[in-house]
Amino acid sequence: MNDIAMKRPRVVIIGGGFGGLWAAQSLARLPVDVTLIDRKNHHVFQPLLYQVATAVLSPGEIAQPIRRILHRNKNTEVILGEAVSFDKDARHVVLSDGAIVPFDYLIVSAGARHAYFGNDDWETEAPGLKTLEDAVEIRRRVLLAFEMAERDAYLAGDQRTLTFVVVGGGPTGVELAGAIADIARKALAKDFKAIDTSTARVILFEGSDRVLGTFAGDLSESGKSQLEDLGVEVRLNSFVTEIESGRVKVGDEWIDCDVVLWATGVAASPLGKALGVATDKAGRVLIEPDLSIPGCRNIFVIGDMASLMQESGEPVPGVSPAAMQMGVAAAANIARDLKSEPRQDFRYVNKGTMATIGRSKAIAELAGMKFKGFVAWLMWLFLHVFFLIGFRNRFAVMFEWFWAYLTRERSARLITGDAEELGEATRLIRARSAPDRSEQK
Amino acid sequence: MNDIAMKRPRVVIIGGGFGGLWAAQSLARLPVDVTLIDRKNHHVFQPLLYQVATAVLSPGEIAQPIRRILHRNKNTEVILGEAVSFDKDARHVVLSDGAIVPFDYLIVSAGARHAYFGNDDWETEAPGLKTLEDAVEIRRRVLLAFEMAERDAYLAGDQRTLTFVVVGGGPTGVELAGAIADIARKALAKDFKAIDTSTARVILFEGSDRVLGTFAGDLSESGKSQLEDLGVEVRLNSFVTEIESGRVKVGDEWIDCDVVLWATGVAASPLGKALGVATDKAGRVLIEPDLSIPGCRNIFVIGDMASLMQESGEPVPGVSPAAMQMGVAAAANIARDLKSEPRQDFRYVNKGTMATIGRSKAIAELAGMKFKGFVAWLMWLFLHVFFLIGFRNRFAVMFEWFWAYLTRERSARLITGDAEELGEATRLIRARSAPDRSEQK
Repeated sequence: MNDIAMKRPRVVIIGGGFGGLWAAQSLARLPVDVTLIDRKNHHVFQPLLYQVATAVLSPGEIAQPIRRILHRNKNTEVILGEAVSFDKDARHVVLSDGAIVPFDYLIVSAGARHAYFGNDDWETEAPGLKTLEDAVEIRRRVLLAFEMAERDAYLAGDQRTLTFVVVGGGPTGVELAGAIADIARKALAKDFKAIDTSTARVILFEGSDRVLGTFAGDLSESGKSQLEDLGVEVRLNSFVTEIESGRVKVGDEWIDCDVVLWATGVAASPLGKALGVATDKAGRVLIEPDLSIPGCRNIFVIGDMASLMQESGEPVPGVSPAAMQMGVAAAANIARDLKSEPRQDFRYVNKGTMATIGRSKAIAELAGMKFKGFVAWLMWLFLHVFFLIGFRNRFAVMFEWFWAYLTRERSARLITGDAEELGEATRLIRARSAPDRSEQK
Repeated sequence: MNDIAMKRPRVVIIGGGFGGLWAAQSLARLPVDVTLIDRKNHHVFQPLLYQVATAVLSPGEIAQPIRRILHRNKNTEVILGEAVSFDKDARHVVLSDGAIVPFDYLIVSAGARHAYFGNDDWETEAPGLKTLEDAVEIRRRVLLAFEMAERDAYLAGDQRTLTFVVVGGGPTGVELAGAIADIARKALAKDFKAIDTSTARVILFEGSDRVLGTFAGDLSESGKSQLEDLGVEVRLNSFVTEIESGRVKVGDEWIDCDVVLWATGVAASPLGKALGVATDKAGRVLIEPDLSIPGCRNIFVIGDMASLMQESGEPVPGVSPAAMQMGVAAAANIARDLKSEPRQDFRYVNKGTMATIGRSKAIAELAGMKFKGFVAWLMWLFLHVFFLIGFRNRFAVMFEWFWAYLTRERSARLITGDAEELGEATRLIRARSAPDRSEQK
């Protein structure tokens, strides 16, 4: 054996989301040393983030420390740190504090955020939902809007209709709109005395001609009517063209609102561009069929950061099952390299998709079959609890859901934050009732 | 009946802690209208705050929306707002945004924070533990210190001993020190690979000659040795005289440390001074025996904000049972006014005190009897679950505790916060390893 064969290759993974975790798990039994680097100490179970944003679950119930998840992997080290650039020739990652992490193989799986279509200043007014911090911020704004309406009604007799706007009719937008309509009509109704929370408007704007556009037409149609059953106003073919404090412009119409949430567009992690290879408009890296980047067989990009066409001509979708499959596939190609076997091209296997809309409401496509309403919702419920990482979380979430289902109560209705965060959220909600607003109309 | 008798008196309560909540509950069946005003939308079960700070429980498990707790009280309105001043003659409260809330009776129960003995700039370096935000900040710093030590050890081979300093040997300081020692030795040990978390030092500084000074001498002695069993270094007669980033000065000795927590001193809410009556050095209002303030029979001050001597010559202690009893007593005196009966003086009934030190470790004095160790800990456990507000929380917390007891795992080990919060916490912990530190010594 020569020196090179004796030294175990170092695999560095950037990102502890679904792609990075599945890669790390697949590498656990290979003769490699793995270093997983993430900016956060925890993995977030993103499919349930909207439940934190709408006060059903607590942050701790959908997140788990990454080093806890991987603590049995003897070849794996987890590091809290922010990768900012790469030296492909010297084969190392540079962290934000200048520290250097060398690699033989690199797997970049740093995900994506929402894109504001060139209007990044909208983010303050209309937060997206990608991290636990986002979810807590959205929860703060939604609950604070009800609190402030109650206060104005009680102290000044000022009765006005609360309006929540959700921009984007994909799964996240639909989940948020459905859940807000649900808490306004059920969970909060008994606790507020000066206002009738059930009169709150929830408006969902979607630019295309249907919501949940990745589903078959009839399921998408069913999703829309299930949303409307919950009281959500669904406006299709509607583009939001301006967002100001307290109002949004849709086409030529200004709509006053208390809270705006953003759930559309994709902006891949800037680490894609930092790799110095071609990216698409959303910043996704155009990867090779074996998931490596052009010209660097030892660097893989996976998950929402990657852009890859399937044989069908459709792109691999930016969903968590695709990220998991890519993580496993990148690890398998590293294993093939170690055994000097040829790499295999990645093939995405669509095992089905589902979207939840609200209590007892969902749609699903599984194994060529379509499901709507309560059955689809039950399937969604069990699959999500099943995949939730960590036994404890699974149990705690089941208890919360069972409790919420029985009592229609929301257990995590906390408005937290330091004075600055609360002040900012208050300012944004207050903007609607500001005296100069009527003049601007 | 005349006009005055027909109009229901308005009782305004400032603060939704134990004092304010117990007052509101006692007023629920009286012919009065109650308005409870709090800066937060939630009541926090303060005795369990240290469990959030040490990652056992999630914020949602020890907090409940105030309007949820009181939602059955038909005469009670809950308002999110910050009282800033009072007009005693015009009988109204002024909120931070200028809104005016009129009252016939006022009960001020806005609590206290820790005092930094004139060194308010120490708060950034050494946070106290009074709110959920405080608890999350402490959790962030404690977990981040371990993460950064792991990272330095892995990337740079830099092995150093983590040091946690807790200032103040009262119940909060003892609980924090015990819990940090416990997670370092048990919960985190298996998850960190480059460092041995069990070598972390936890030092508790107490200015007097014993910890838990409100307990009998032998219990206090037992508390100290139980702490030492957990690995905490207890230093009595030790005053912290300086705090800088990364180190504290105790007497003439500088001690390097990664995290400093503050758990001593009392600074009553500034609302006491805003009432324009005499206060003690800690800002507590010197109240009359019927809990009203001098010269204003319709204004009561209760809880940690109030200073009152018992017949024994001892002051009523600043503990939650005293705040609850005062809340009930203030409401009872209002009820007596309504029936034109004479008011009664407040008498504090000490039903016993207990302090927890760690897993299976506690001390208690109940009904003249003294308990130590496991028995005291079981009593503490059941009493705290029993008093925890809200059935759901009670159940969830029992589950968490049972789980933590069985597995020694900590379920809420999340480092959250926006970039600014994390950056600040990182800077503070990093300070210790800064190159200019050695020169300063």
